[in-house]
Amino acid sequence: MSSASRSAFARSNCAVASTLDIIGDKWSLLVIRDLFAGKSTYGELLTADEGVPTNILADRLRRLEEAGIIEKSAYQERPVRFAYALTPKGRDMGEILVAIVRWGKKHLAGTVALDIATRGTGAVAAPKKKATRPRSARRS
Amino acid sequence: MSSASRSAFARSNCAVASTLDIIGDKWSLLVIRDLFAGKSTYGELLTADEGVPTNILADRLRRLEEAGIIEKSAYQERPVRFAYALTPKGRDMGEILVAIVRWGKKHLAGTVALDIATRGTGAVAAPKKKATRPRSARRS
Repeated sequence: MSSASRSAFARSNCAVASTLDIIGDKWSLLVIRDLFAGKSTYGELLTADEGVPTNILADRLRRLEEAGIIEKSAYQERPVRFAYALTPKGRDMGEILVAIVRWGKKHLAGTVALDIATRGTGAVAAPKKKATRPRSARRS
Repeated sequence: MSSASRSAFARSNCAVASTLDIIGDKWSLLVIRDLFAGKSTYGELLTADEGVPTNILADRLRRLEEAGIIEKSAYQERPVRFAYALTPKGRDMGEILVAIVRWGKKHLAGTVALDIATRGTGAVAAPKKKATRPRSARRS
């Protein structure tokens, strides 16, 4: 509230409000869901069942990257193409997805959990390995 | 997708997408947070730190009621005034709030948990008792 902390919080210092300032929309968590499910390229993310408009997807990727939730790396030059991946901060959102999936399946008839976030109490299945790094770099 | 199931899902049958169709915005979960914290009247909800615009608050209350997440009851006639409360379906959103609070506190420096959703792994503190029912009706 003081001028020293101006712009620290968009609305309040409430953890819920500040988190919603980042992911409080209809699309951000779907992008995060799809990254958990193993998608990584812009083209893959664009194929979500919900039909995300391309300008919305581009905006959400930019915002999630700015918030440190995802990171991108070039996997091709000329033309440059980027692969997107969750950071540790982003993977910690798995618990939020799990809670939302559980609520939805319980209370919204006919809904299902897609690929991820169906197990455990906070732990989310590791994203599928994508061939975005050399196999030799993988650790067992 | 078939005509028989038209309008069953706004975007897809994914539990995440369908839940976000209800609460995927910056305000709905703050209203739910405040109901957990013991607020119940329109005036009380309007005093949220985040400064919710009154038209937004009215819209969210209407939508949450339509979704069966909250219910309202008149506590005064002439003029009629309503008190809002979480339904069991709404209280089940406590787990989502807990997950969001935990993520926010961990990753957004300086944020705090307000009143609720700070304990346990999915269990949320019971809302403060409001004098909306006779004391004699309370159970110990």
